[in-house]
Amino acid sequence: MTRFAFTVEFDGRPFMGWQRQAHGPSVQQAMEDAIFAVTGERAVIHAAGRTDAGVHGLAMRCHADVEKDMPPFRLMEAVNARLRPHPVAVLACEAVPDDWHARFSCVGRSYVYRIVNRRAPLTWESGLAWRVIQPLDEKAMQEAAQVLVGLHDFTTFRSAHCQSTSPIKTLDRLDVERAGDRIAIHAAARSFLHHQVRSMVGCLAMVGMGRWSATDMQRALEARDRAALALNAPPDGLYFVRADYPA
Amino acid sequence: MTRFAFTVEFDGRPFMGWQRQAHGPSVQQAMEDAIFAVTGERAVIHAAGRTDAGVHGLAMRCHADVEKDMPPFRLMEAVNARLRPHPVAVLACEAVPDDWHARFSCVGRSYVYRIVNRRAPLTWESGLAWRVIQPLDEKAMQEAAQVLVGLHDFTTFRSAHCQSTSPIKTLDRLDVERAGDRIAIHAAARSFLHHQVRSMVGCLAMVGMGRWSATDMQRALEARDRAALALNAPPDGLYFVRADYPA
Repeated sequence: MTRFAFTVEFDGRPFMGWQRQAHGPSVQQAMEDAIFAVTGERAVIHAAGRTDAGVHGLAMRCHADVEKDMPPFRLMEAVNARLRPHPVAVLACEAVPDDWHARFSCVGRSYVYRIVNRRAPLTWESGLAWRVIQPLDEKAMQEAAQVLVGLHDFTTFRSAHCQSTSPIKTLDRLDVERAGDRIAIHAAARSFLHHQVRSMVGCLAMVGMGRWSATDMQRALEARDRAALALNAPPDGLYFVRADYPA
Repeated sequence: MTRFAFTVEFDGRPFMGWQRQAHGPSVQQAMEDAIFAVTGERAVIHAAGRTDAGVHGLAMRCHADVEKDMPPFRLMEAVNARLRPHPVAVLACEAVPDDWHARFSCVGRSYVYRIVNRRAPLTWESGLAWRVIQPLDEKAMQEAAQVLVGLHDFTTFRSAHCQSTSPIKTLDRLDVERAGDRIAIHAAARSFLHHQVRSMVGCLAMVGMGRWSATDMQRALEARDRAALALNAPPDGLYFVRADYPA
């Protein structure tokens, strides 16, 4: 048996999310089916994060245990051939120690949220970004974002379906950058609550529109109440960027 | 009658190209149908460039003459509403003098060609970039690109279907930039021959793979013979970026 770690890129649009679902296609199922087609084995894939329906992955990390003896490069190539026509691709594959776990060994997760700040509808980016029509003040957003950085009770920014044992998390980074009509919001933490990034982005958009201040953001955080949330940003703009592991 | 200039973004994947075709959908037809839906007028759209099937537009410029009296902003909003579900969007609209012509007044055209230089298949970028598996040396590409800059007979880089009166053109810019596994090739000229950018990119890719040198590029240019072309890059990676007009 060899434990293989995969780095996976995927377009979240056709999927119900990362995790295997009874009622629709998932990235996990696409990966597990491709591994079965290659190895004849029903391996279970474990991932660093479980993204929601419509959320994308630039470099999701996951692992599976495979009995068949294959060099990592050959396994990657064969899995990629079997992943077609799903918009899922293995960017890298390596053999890892048996105690390495894509989820439990992960010590850092990064996301980026992409906003296109314009009136015109999206064309080739449809489903790949959130179009916000109202002009957004990215400096006000950056200032309000810093209210959320650090150790906090993020109950306000947590989905009712969140399975985390605690709403207390340390947010390491929340940065807002604009380039033309594109706004990218970079978020990093050891781990996130369910819907946390989208909920933070939704509130930052309210700040960008001038409807909320940094003080309103502070009040929402301190309320520790989902009812204090302004809005949840749509999944379209969210990308899982990176998972970090001890060297 | 008012002449309106439009700035249009489009995803080229579902279209046979910009120009109206009997055998399939075109961006021109999508625009003309939307204007008809708004105004009841069968206006003809003239564009700065006629992109091929599968080629994209970030800011194509075009114009149409409209009898109906409408402020540019309202026309833009109404046309965008009627363009759905086509992946075409008007980014800007303005009234221009009657002698302004999107094609004939245009004094500069810019394209970018996007390559993803990796083994893994594309996911969300499928049809939006050219995947090149072989590692590309972007410095060698940049050096060879400079062979093509300036006033030359570009017969080698011209499609057999090209309708231009002369193969002699001045290429103002051809720059190759890498960011990670993404390579962007920026091309600018007053005008281009049919397939010129894709043909230049195809030859640059040969250079990047180490199969051609800058000297081979020079020989291909001097051959003034389509048979000297290495390969034509696919339309997927090509974007019309900008049209320039006298102030």
